[in-house]
Amino acid sequence: MQMNPDKDTRLCISLSGRPGNFGLRFHNHLYEQLGLNFYYKACSSKDLAGAVTGIRALGIRGCGVSMPFKEAVIELVDELDASARAIASINTIVNTDGHLKAYNTDYIAIAQLLDTHKVPKDTTFALLGSGGMAKAVASALRDGGYRNGVIVARNEATGSALAASCGYDWQPELAAHRPQMLINVTPVGMTGGAEADDLAFEADAIDRCKIVFDVVAIPVETPLIIRGRAQGKHVITGLEVIAIQALEQFVLYTGVRPAAAQFQAAVAFARS
Amino acid sequence: MQMNPDKDTRLCISLSGRPGNFGLRFHNHLYEQLGLNFYYKACSSKDLAGAVTGIRALGIRGCGVSMPFKEAVIELVDELDASARAIASINTIVNTDGHLKAYNTDYIAIAQLLDTHKVPKDTTFALLGSGGMAKAVASALRDGGYRNGVIVARNEATGSALAASCGYDWQPELAAHRPQMLINVTPVGMTGGAEADDLAFEADAIDRCKIVFDVVAIPVETPLIIRGRAQGKHVITGLEVIAIQALEQFVLYTGVRPAAAQFQAAVAFARS
Repeated sequence: MQMNPDKDTRLCISLSGRPGNFGLRFHNHLYEQLGLNFYYKACSSKDLAGAVTGIRALGIRGCGVSMPFKEAVIELVDELDASARAIASINTIVNTDGHLKAYNTDYIAIAQLLDTHKVPKDTTFALLGSGGMAKAVASALRDGGYRNGVIVARNEATGSALAASCGYDWQPELAAHRPQMLINVTPVGMTGGAEADDLAFEADAIDRCKIVFDVVAIPVETPLIIRGRAQGKHVITGLEVIAIQALEQFVLYTGVRPAAAQFQAAVAFARS
Repeated sequence: MQMNPDKDTRLCISLSGRPGNFGLRFHNHLYEQLGLNFYYKACSSKDLAGAVTGIRALGIRGCGVSMPFKEAVIELVDELDASARAIASINTIVNTDGHLKAYNTDYIAIAQLLDTHKVPKDTTFALLGSGGMAKAVASALRDGGYRNGVIVARNEATGSALAASCGYDWQPELAAHRPQMLINVTPVGMTGGAEADDLAFEADAIDRCKIVFDVVAIPVETPLIIRGRAQGKHVITGLEVIAIQALEQFVLYTGVRPAAAQFQAAVAFARS
């Protein structure tokens, strides 16, 4: 945070079912480094509508929105940016004099990562998952011109709906399919989850792919990422996703884009 | 503020028409000195009900309430402490798991000051003013057993109502009255006001009294206080009022009572 708060300090918050430390450490570190008069507070809530009322009434500048609020919050804002409208899911609210505009910086982050990692447009891929984050990833792939994909999800209702909305096929399991890029957008491999020690994809599929992309960020080194690295695969981690989506939130809230070195230092601080 | 905010950091705010710096500097300084994981943010609002909804929904621990919200907020809380019920005016809300209990620490501060300054119970006094703060001061005098008072206020409606509620007489002007204690609870002498350079009471009355008590805190050295000091009077300043009321808020929010030296250091820091 800025070291000398005063009456003009602007407040940004996050709203989630289970607040973490990454976002608040990332944002507060950059406020301090850049001399911006902001403070970031992680909040949980059982009253989403009341929380959004509070954002307006207290003049809170920005709000990061996490599970389980990303879809329910849509009807509470005034305007949807294209990034949020495309997937009907919000992770960022910007409050400008009481007008709430919503964004999805997860979508923005995925699109950036496909670009900076120079993933070829004709890459065949399998995306495992069909939740809110899977919608952001699939939409970014579709809008990035990636045509050769399949959505893998045990839940047929959500899986086939997501696949249809993005023009991909759906299948309940990877089975014999061996795509060039494997993308995990489920909690498999996440610390504290029931499948924390599991590989999101079967070992043979990992060994035969070119790119491993895991959206799980805690830990950064999931079993999937560890095996991918060991096999010399091109790896894209969940840390890159949460860092870039946080950076884009920061830019939306403050109007300031940190230099690359400042961004990397903030990521390192937020993880420590 | 606490130097390393995390997901468990608790937020306290103030709500006022025109936020100042004293409260946030006082509270944040003490949080840091005492190692308490709290942060204090000054807020303004045009939507009092929405702001209180936000306090509940976002789990904000405490809220200082200033003009013009001290009376309107009564119907929005769940419980009134005796300090607030006695005068139907609130300056502090404490949120315990969604239950909002309201206090008036101005009343508490005035009562403390009459005690610590050892003002004799039979002191004759004139209280100038009839607004929300005047209610707090008059109620503290009444409850402290000070019987020999008069309320001086040009506004007959509010002045006579306040006098009647506390068992005092009302008069529109001080006129020939020469009480032992003069108490200013109007904006006369306040920085930026229309009467910033004026004495709240006529010079002869000041010169003939024993105790000068000014609730105006900005500046601390009002024309009334300056003249009182020059005449060797016993002086009680508005700084003492805002400092003690802030201290009592701090204790209510955190459950921790700072040592006297820590309190004095926080006051000095907040003024700097």
